Amino acid sequence: MNIQRLTDELSIRRQLADGTEQQLQAVKEIIQAVRTEGDAALYRFSKKWDKAELTALKVTQEEIQQAAERFDPQLLADLTEAADNIRSYHEGQQQQGYRQDRADGSYVAQRVTAIESAGLYVPGGTAAYPSSVLMNVIPAQVAGVGRIVVVSPPDSEGNLSDGVLVAAHILGIEELYKTGGAQAIAALAYGTESIQPVDKITGPGNIFVALAKREVNGDVAIDMIAGPSEIAIIADDSAYADEVAADLLSQAEHDPLASAVLLTESRELAEQVAAQVESQLKNLPREAIAAASIRDHGAIYVANNRTDLIKAANQLAPEHLEIMTEDAEAMAQEIDHAGAIFIGRYSSEPVGDYFAGTNHVLPTNSTARFSSALSVYDFVKRTSIVHYSEQAWRENQEKIARLARLEGLEAHARAVESRAWKKGSQS
Amino acid sequence: MNIQRLTDELSIRRQLADGTEQQLQAVKEIIQAVRTEGDAALYRFSKKWDKAELTALKVTQEEIQQAAERFDPQLLADLTEAADNIRSYHEGQQQQGYRQDRADGSYVAQRVTAIESAGLYVPGGTAAYPSSVLMNVIPAQVAGVGRIVVVSPPDSEGNLSDGVLVAAHILGIEELYKTGGAQAIAALAYGTESIQPVDKITGPGNIFVALAKREVNGDVAIDMIAGPSEIAIIADDSAYADEVAADLLSQAEHDPLASAVLLTESRELAEQVAAQVESQLKNLPREAIAAASIRDHGAIYVANNRTDLIKAANQLAPEHLEIMTEDAEAMAQEIDHAGAIFIGRYSSEPVGDYFAGTNHVLPTNSTARFSSALSVYDFVKRTSIVHYSEQAWRENQEKIARLARLEGLEAHARAVESRAWKKGSQS
Repeated sequence: MNIQRLTDELSIRRQLADGTEQQLQAVKEIIQAVRTEGDAALYRFSKKWDKAELTALKVTQEEIQQAAERFDPQLLADLTEAADNIRSYHEGQQQQGYRQDRADGSYVAQRVTAIESAGLYVPGGTAAYPSSVLMNVIPAQVAGVGRIVVVSPPDSEGNLSDGVLVAAHILGIEELYKTGGAQAIAALAYGTESIQPVDKITGPGNIFVALAKREVNGDVAIDMIAGPSEIAIIADDSAYADEVAADLLSQAEHDPLASAVLLTESRELAEQVAAQVESQLKNLPREAIAAASIRDHGAIYVANNRTDLIKAANQLAPEHLEIMTEDAEAMAQEIDHAGAIFIGRYSSEPVGDYFAGTNHVLPTNSTARFSSALSVYDFVKRTSIVHYSEQAWRENQEKIARLARLEGLEAHARAVESRAWKKGSQS
Repeated sequence: MNIQRLTDELSIRRQLADGTEQQLQAVKEIIQAVRTEGDAALYRFSKKWDKAELTALKVTQEEIQQAAERFDPQLLADLTEAADNIRSYHEGQQQQGYRQDRADGSYVAQRVTAIESAGLYVPGGTAAYPSSVLMNVIPAQVAGVGRIVVVSPPDSEGNLSDGVLVAAHILGIEELYKTGGAQAIAALAYGTESIQPVDKITGPGNIFVALAKREVNGDVAIDMIAGPSEIAIIADDSAYADEVAADLLSQAEHDPLASAVLLTESRELAEQVAAQVESQLKNLPREAIAAASIRDHGAIYVANNRTDLIKAANQLAPEHLEIMTEDAEAMAQEIDHAGAIFIGRYSSEPVGDYFAGTNHVLPTNSTARFSSALSVYDFVKRTSIVHYSEQAWRENQEKIARLARLEGLEAHARAVESRAWKKGSQS
């Protein structure tokens, strides 16, 4: 692993994959086909891409029940406990409305309500992630979303993985469909005979899914378009090199484009970690992926001082930031930009991926400067409420009319004044 | 104004203007020019589009001060009072973080911090809107954004309108630049010699501004892309037709594409309002705009019953909804989807545009189903925090490793297990 001196020129801001013109064109055609042909297009694309001859799109409660029965009971318990932790953390995000009453009888208020329906995309195939089901569905459930739909591509037998089915079982999902790719996003956005459209689509996916989400954005809401995973670790001599290396590799194994960066003042730790990464890489099942990620997007930076470390971390604004230093808790206070911060030796990043309760859908590509983890806030909307009393109107109407005329909007001024055009009143 | 019976086929969902391929190409070229040439491009485009020969981009505090001194003191007082009301309403949106401690010494937390910098676009030319300055800047200030930048195109004399300068004066804006159009958005996103880049761009603009915001989205955050303004009014026989008509026209005068819709059970009111709209239109300064809006996007629907009225309003999910009925407050409770609700006779919509305190940047095009008014929440980000104690790790590490292996992510499992690979511990 490459060791460099940290300089002011640190520039590791990453670019989000845009997709090729050809991919975008393909996605547009798929969306159009689903809008025109409905279910028929979903069956056709499933045959083409998933190699599956489906007889129905909707997963039956029986399929879900059977998966739960044959599932390892220990893993079922683990997933259930994880779901409980995630629910408990997200309950801290429940938002209340408020109302401000004024002495003149007027009030302004904000009402918070859940969106009516949400659709969650779950990748399928070799990488089936039950944890993604938990991380996307639970915030929507805590928000109070009435209708939650999960879509995921089937294997060539026409089945979803037991892990995904069991996660759906734990969460009580009633609508789960076997469809993936851009066609699944189109179905969620515009509906088909089998799938009613939803108001918001969340969840990770490949480039076709990402492009499709961008295409339908505006007609429905979408969550962020996540880029490849990232970890930055700040560590000092109190950290164990093998643990730092293991944590770097846990991100690197995700994707050849994933990024793993160590920031340290210790040249000795830097060298030990570099050696540990090389040796631990060797017997990883996903060695090729992790090795490519480390080679192309991995780096160890040795800084002159603590200030530079903090500055670099804030400049990176990484998706995940681990702090393994003697003053980890104090240092965390100085981090302005990170999707999630993991404090101390025992807070290895996978703790947050699966179990601690925080959301693992996090801003990448330095967007932690202005974006946040997926949350309950993503599944609510707020309505402003204005009530003016007769008194409030009488005392303020001239001011409002003047402000409207200042902007050249005469009809605005007259609308407010119209209440004075006649005798009589109505409360 | 066209009167129709309300049927189930009510479909008034509107399309957002996408811009032509030519406009998009022009915007891309402008953005590229600003990225390459910096300030020089801003001067050049200002000469081309604003017909202004600028000598400096930044507005001096002296210019702002002079505008405040020559401004009508009554209007200055009105704007100041409006700003106070807006600030007071938005203070209700201040978000606190939270922390959940567990008995095993671990905790999970959410920290809320302001984004570092925000840029606000204010349209210029004939339509200078000081209220837009208030509505965009105040939520950012309440959030605690450190650096707030306002950009607006100059007139051909190279000046901004006094209204905009005075709004900046009231809010204590230090960075105000004379630049508009797509080039201003590019400058905010990528920076020039004079303008440091920002993390988030908000504010309304023409099609070039909207396209530019979409182009830079991801590199920086943007607020929603707002479509033409909309009002729906639910009214019964207790409402005055002239007031209903005046309120419809106050939206119609914004834009030929603006939409004004009345929903009522009363055929009599429908006919009176239609007549009033015709007669009030005649002496409006913006008669041509309002007439086109009413003709092309205005409608009066007569419903069979109250249930259908509510259903239609929710289907529309309008930007602004006024309720002028005897049971206005109760009816408001049944509205699930609207950007803002104005309850009762004295709550004419311009009350909210200028003065009541709620934000006038609201979701259009039925996106109130899943979007909300511009708010303090748009100027903060949330960082998740995970701290696992040695005990928490010991009690949960096997579960976490099992969940990682269920997803085929061996390096994740090993990262968590690595803490057990050696003797000794560190807290």
